[in-house]
Amino acid sequence: MNRQLSEEKVFKDPVHKYIYVQDQTIWDLINTKEFQRLRRIRQLGTSYLTFHGAEHSRFSHSLGVYEITRKIISQFERNGFPGWPQEERLLALCAALLHDVGHGPFSHSLEQVFDTHHEQWTCNILLEDTEVNRILRNVADDFPEHVTAVINKTYPNPIVSGLISSQLDADRMDYLLRDAYFTGVNYGNFDLERILRVLRPIDGKIVVKESGMHAVEHYLMSRYQMYWQIYFHPVTRSSEIILRQIFRRAKELYEGGYVFCWMPEPLKRLLDGTIAVKDYLKLDEAYLQTAFTEWGDEGDELLAELCDRFLTRRLYKYIMLDKPDISLFNEVRQQFAAIGLNPDYHMEIDFPFDQPYDVYQPDTKKGGKEEKTPILLMDGYEAVSEISTKSDIIRSITGLHQGQSHLYYPEEKLRASADQLSDKVRKLFKI
Amino acid sequence: MNRQLSEEKVFKDPVHKYIYVQDQTIWDLINTKEFQRLRRIRQLGTSYLTFHGAEHSRFSHSLGVYEITRKIISQFERNGFPGWPQEERLLALCAALLHDVGHGPFSHSLEQVFDTHHEQWTCNILLEDTEVNRILRNVADDFPEHVTAVINKTYPNPIVSGLISSQLDADRMDYLLRDAYFTGVNYGNFDLERILRVLRPIDGKIVVKESGMHAVEHYLMSRYQMYWQIYFHPVTRSSEIILRQIFRRAKELYEGGYVFCWMPEPLKRLLDGTIAVKDYLKLDEAYLQTAFTEWGDEGDELLAELCDRFLTRRLYKYIMLDKPDISLFNEVRQQFAAIGLNPDYHMEIDFPFDQPYDVYQPDTKKGGKEEKTPILLMDGYEAVSEISTKSDIIRSITGLHQGQSHLYYPEEKLRASADQLSDKVRKLFKI
Amino acid sequence: MNRQLSEEKVFKDPVHKYIYVQDQTIWDLINTKEFQRLRRIRQLGTSYLTFHGAEHSRFSHSLGVYEITRKIISQFERNGFPGWPQEERLLALCAALLHDVGHGPFSHSLEQVFDTHHEQWTCNILLEDTEVNRILRNVADDFPEHVTAVINKTYPNPIVSGLISSQLDADRMDYLLRDAYFTGVNYGNFDLERILRVLRPIDGKIVVKESGMHAVEHYLMSRYQMYWQIYFHPVTRSSEIILRQIFRRAKELYEGGYVFCWMPEPLKRLLDGTIAVKDYLKLDEAYLQTAFTEWGDEGDELLAELCDRFLTRRLYKYIMLDKPDISLFNEVRQQFAAIGLNPDYHMEIDFPFDQPYDVYQPDTKKGGKEEKTPILLMDGYEAVSEISTKSDIIRSITGLHQGQSHLYYPEEKLRASADQLSDKVRKLFKI
Amino acid sequence: MNRQLSEEKVFKDPVHKYIYVQDQTIWDLINTKEFQRLRRIRQLGTSYLTFHGAEHSRFSHSLGVYEITRKIISQFERNGFPGWPQEERLLALCAALLHDVGHGPFSHSLEQVFDTHHEQWTCNILLEDTEVNRILRNVADDFPEHVTAVINKTYPNPIVSGLISSQLDADRMDYLLRDAYFTGVNYGNFDLERILRVLRPIDGKIVVKESGMHAVEHYLMSRYQMYWQIYFHPVTRSSEIILRQIFRRAKELYEGGYVFCWMPEPLKRLLDGTIAVKDYLKLDEAYLQTAFTEWGDEGDELLAELCDRFLTRRLYKYIMLDKPDISLFNEVRQQFAAIGLNPDYHMEIDFPFDQPYDVYQPDTKKGGKEEKTPILLMDGYEAVSEISTKSDIIRSITGLHQGQSHLYYPEEKLRASADQLSDKVRKLFKI
Repeated sequence: MNRQLSEEKVFKDPVHKYIYVQDQTIWDLINTKEFQRLRRIRQLGTSYLTFHGAEHSRFSHSLGVYEITRKIISQFERNGFPGWPQEERLLALCAALLHDVGHGPFSHSLEQVFDTHHEQWTCNILLEDTEVNRILRNVADDFPEHVTAVINKTYPNPIVSGLISSQLDADRMDYLLRDAYFTGVNYGNFDLERILRVLRPIDGKIVVKESGMHAVEHYLMSRYQMYWQIYFHPVTRSSEIILRQIFRRAKELYEGGYVFCWMPEPLKRLLDGTIAVKDYLKLDEAYLQTAFTEWGDEGDELLAELCDRFLTRRLYKYIMLDKPDISLFNEVRQQFAAIGLNPDYHMEIDFPFDQPYDVYQPDTKKGGKEEKTPILLMDGYEAVSEISTKSDIIRSITGLHQGQSHLYYPEEKLRASADQLSDKVRKLFKI
Repeated sequence: MNRQLSEEKVFKDPVHKYIYVQDQTIWDLINTKEFQRLRRIRQLGTSYLTFHGAEHSRFSHSLGVYEITRKIISQFERNGFPGWPQEERLLALCAALLHDVGHGPFSHSLEQVFDTHHEQWTCNILLEDTEVNRILRNVADDFPEHVTAVINKTYPNPIVSGLISSQLDADRMDYLLRDAYFTGVNYGNFDLERILRVLRPIDGKIVVKESGMHAVEHYLMSRYQMYWQIYFHPVTRSSEIILRQIFRRAKELYEGGYVFCWMPEPLKRLLDGTIAVKDYLKLDEAYLQTAFTEWGDEGDELLAELCDRFLTRRLYKYIMLDKPDISLFNEVRQQFAAIGLNPDYHMEIDFPFDQPYDVYQPDTKKGGKEEKTPILLMDGYEAVSEISTKSDIIRSITGLHQGQSHLYYPEEKLRASADQLSDKVRKLFKI
Repeated sequence: MNRQLSEEKVFKDPVHKYIYVQDQTIWDLINTKEFQRLRRIRQLGTSYLTFHGAEHSRFSHSLGVYEITRKIISQFERNGFPGWPQEERLLALCAALLHDVGHGPFSHSLEQVFDTHHEQWTCNILLEDTEVNRILRNVADDFPEHVTAVINKTYPNPIVSGLISSQLDADRMDYLLRDAYFTGVNYGNFDLERILRVLRPIDGKIVVKESGMHAVEHYLMSRYQMYWQIYFHPVTRSSEIILRQIFRRAKELYEGGYVFCWMPEPLKRLLDGTIAVKDYLKLDEAYLQTAFTEWGDEGDELLAELCDRFLTRRLYKYIMLDKPDISLFNEVRQQFAAIGLNPDYHMEIDFPFDQPYDVYQPDTKKGGKEEKTPILLMDGYEAVSEISTKSDIIRSITGLHQGQSHLYYPEEKLRASADQLSDKVRKLFKI
Repeated sequence: MNRQLSEEKVFKDPVHKYIYVQDQTIWDLINTKEFQRLRRIRQLGTSYLTFHGAEHSRFSHSLGVYEITRKIISQFERNGFPGWPQEERLLALCAALLHDVGHGPFSHSLEQVFDTHHEQWTCNILLEDTEVNRILRNVADDFPEHVTAVINKTYPNPIVSGLISSQLDADRMDYLLRDAYFTGVNYGNFDLERILRVLRPIDGKIVVKESGMHAVEHYLMSRYQMYWQIYFHPVTRSSEIILRQIFRRAKELYEGGYVFCWMPEPLKRLLDGTIAVKDYLKLDEAYLQTAFTEWGDEGDELLAELCDRFLTRRLYKYIMLDKPDISLFNEVRQQFAAIGLNPDYHMEIDFPFDQPYDVYQPDTKKGGKEEKTPILLMDGYEAVSEISTKSDIIRSITGLHQGQSHLYYPEEKLRASADQLSDKVRKLFKI
């Protein structure tokens, strides 16, 4: 059972000015230990090492997604649009608030090394014995399952999922604005109010009134800029590489029977793959950073070096690569080995890649979740069409596959042995 | 020896847009492990529990103080003001950058429980065997001592210290703007450009051209607002109380011979008062939060409760008090004890206090540092006078002593035993 | 009869992002010729000569006052506060929108020379044969009179007037934010959302919840800063002096039978005091500026000089005066006359004056309108008290009478005859 | 001869915070009557009828172009780039400040009806007997000709012209930011500081460092958005159509010998094509609006109707057209005539058109001025290439020809005779 709060409560938020809470259930969910834990997990992982303002947490982003969802629904209700199922309001708000509750510390890097997925942890936290689960079950016995289904995009009423996962959803809208604000760039500043005003719920989908086409173009361009200028920034990529290498080295050592000076239960279970919710919830970014501090004194030199690199921001440098060249790479590997570097760690190729907008909705979905729902425009006669059929500029960028290869390496070590490198390699690394 | 960077480097900063680095020494200092450590210490301590945006670090603030100082000096140099000693430029910039390098995790709370002062740690880090010290010594053998002297306000040329510590200094100017930005309030937004333009170096002091008087009034009012709306926010004070109680309890237990499940070297040395620079530098906020996570499972119920309160934000509630009433307090203590609460922990009176502006420069200085330097105005005839003699509004608030008492307590425990409380106490706590 | 628009309409507004129109009556009023005319009257008169961004019109301010009023009422309705008379919504919105509709070009200067008052013209436009009157009469026969009464503060339900005229009203809130935005200063940026959230309708008055006290302090300080930094800026005052002198000279000439090369009907009627609504509505700022352009070629040298000064911004310079000194003034007048200046025009003393906040509600009201309603705080027990009894900082500035005398004069003329001036006068004018 | 001002002067500007003037020549130019006249000409013509904030003047834009140019040059000088000819500083600043000084009221509309070009008037004002000319001649006898040559892009040193007219110039950079600020949209907010930092003067051209590529993409996208959302807004186009029709009708009447109730010398000379600088300078927007006010009472009904439409914003409505259809248009014309409309005035087809970016530099130049200079990137080896060869997203939009036809008409008149229209026409106009 949900009830209205006797008095609306607010959170001061730099992006939305205020975030308004009107439901007891939402208030209680925010106060659970699982949700409060998101305060200790950064929204942008290691980006703060590139953009020092980017310290904001998944807690603030989750509130932001909730607030945008609340505003969209409020607009639907105020206008009495028949396409919006009013009884799903609380369900949509809970799903918006909780969609990221399963994120772990430095999620993307962690997930690439250990076989773990934040989506799965979100389900576990919603469905197992947690404070969040208790609050949701207070609403109705099957409410935790419903919220989970919305987040997994398996809920029978697809419009509810559409609010929080599509190519124009509350999640993306909040993170573009929020990440722009905290990094201090202005690339992500699209006109949120305008977009909210032109959304319409029709036939189980959220569509955009044709008059909002240019605002959506602007939003897609903002997203594109944020990918290339923030999310794929080479310095951030370098710090993610170091982070993955720390995880990889620790796993190697652990599996080899190495005895760590500090190896508490939650970390041990992460490394041996037996971790469950209770320990997972202890794994915040403070916990991992403390591990790195402690491991900085480990006997294993490689692990100690990597931890030190991460904490003191002595990251790998990079060069840009035009195209793959296997023989060149082999030469580099050999020469790295020859001067005492570890080619499995001291060089890594990275190829970040983004599509500004994808018109196709693929058949196969990973894990029940697929966010590539196309953006639909509705004209004055209520005819609906995919946006790239109307917008020249979106059509011209649709399907554009963009990427750029970089090779990361410890520059100071390379320079120290410069005289032992071949001319070709020296030239490649501008030494 | 300092030299110019071959190409100016920048940091993207939300407050100043960009922070410009032109000197190799500044660049090297930023890259020391001691300075990078400031990334793991929040500028506003526990304020993020009240204002979720306030996650920004002392790293970003330190860059900001540097940048404002750089701008002031650059203005002085561009105009060729004779009052500015051009040879002190690098000294001032280094002092601005490093003035907070000694801050520990949750500094203000930590310092109230343990006998430690961040000013002293700043000196230690500048003068002992650290990366910072090595970089400074590269400039000149006595350069570390000079930077320390500027920060301690004992440098013979007082105008250098004046830039970074007075009632209108680069430090205050940056934190007001920065804290306003990250909390999302607009109280702290004074006109930085205008104030920078009206500063003049005269007779060893930084003074303000008379035409800038209203801008300074605005700055002082902004400062006043920030104190009451942000720094003294009762929810933040409550989290600081919990924090101090954690430290106090851990110290009590440690001194009583209690065996902690996790008590690494740096924490042990903090508790027994033998901590030195090497261990101090490991003590960042991640480290302390990890301790709280681990101690949440301690056998000592009080410590476990306090750690859980802090991490899950189950803070004490508060009531406002008009005036001290000893007999009432004694009654409250007795009743708290009677219902099983611990009056030494479960109730605490707090009286935050601020003077909007202080005209007097006291004779006695604590630790060589006294930031109450008055603000001076210079009229068209270069006559200098203290600002409150010219500004009606500053005169009217000068010396205003403002404060408000609050009593903090665990509301849910009190409510659980409400029927055992006297009417008087119930009324006081609105139960 | 009013009805809802089938679809909400919006105006893009830099201050409020969007201005929302939901009522056919409001939409129709905005489209009247009388309201559209406000586009041709600047909100800040001659301030654009000091702050070149300040070109914004009374049209945009009027929409802003409407929007703030709409938001306040919407908050009252959403919360179901019993103190708000829901049936007065449209009345309040119309009064907010139309309260400035009677403003003429460069109102304040015009009104000081001719015996005319914009409040009276507002009444005339609402009550005589105008498009505005027709739209209002469509709502109800006596609706024009009711709107007029609200604007005049004679409406029986005082809370309706309170929204748009008190010391914390929609009018002041919009103009502080708007004038700050367009001039580019940040002195006027108080937290509008916060203040709107703490307003409560109680016993025929709008009061402020105690938790909003600091926000109101910030608003009052913003207002104070705007007065001294923008509204009373000496360059703006100088341009207003020139403007008044143009009007004064034209009147003198007209009354003396002078034949102007351009003297159209509306201007003639303004000068001879017989102007009525139809001609008044033609008198926008474009019209007056055109008159100045034409009069720049007049045979009367003084009028031509003044018009040229205004259009090409060759304003009088000023010196600050400490205190009145009659004998000095007389000496200045004599010397001005001696070197061929016209002491009735070429010197003018100006004493702008403001009270930051006035606690008293005087008994006598001028013209039925008195905007000095004090600001009331309501504590947790719904007890209401005047704000300066609670706020130290407001108490300390209450009743502060601030002012500064300036003497304006044509500097280039004075310099040209510097050798004929006494030493005393030369020193006074820093020649 | 130019000299430095003894003290830097500033203008408060909402876009650049402050505009700094350091040269006596710049200060004197700003104070000429010809430059002050730009205060009475809006930057965005009739856009204020769509976006009420867009009242800003060409005066403020001209200062902004000057300021951006000053910043670029200051960056070049600070870094000592050899590609920048330091002796051309004042020339570039004067050209930046004065490049728009020839604009007349509602320039674009005016120029389409009368055979007049603001570029030509700029030359006239610089070279004929004006205050601007006198100030410039003070610098050097041929200085006015040099400034004119830079503005006309015929100056021998092309890099000077490149600063103020190319596809990435100070002119465009200021107007995008300024128009975004005053309309209140955020489409135009690209990262000015970043772009300024990556500009380099090489071989007589301004090029962009490769690391700035994404910032330039963002700027081009901002520009694209501004065109479609602001400059080509259909309501603005409608007001421009009315304006051109007023000019066209007045010309027709004048040439037919019609006697106007108000026809002062400057307007008469505009209509008969004999206007020279002295009268042209009187023609500001206030003057034209006054003409419209006076002509609203003319005997010619069509002229009176058009003037009234403009002043009271009773603009034509529009329908969107997919493609030209001559037979349909003829049918519409016939039916318009049949119901008493004037098909030469009461219907007008408009086709705004823009290329987001144009890679080609055409051979032929109109009037010596061609702003389609491509944007050049310089890579790490100082190799220069046109930007669309490097940026996928710019390549994908290059040469995109975008446009949309609208048919404008007086809706209320059409509705009044709806029953006399054919079904086809009624359907077309949605009646």
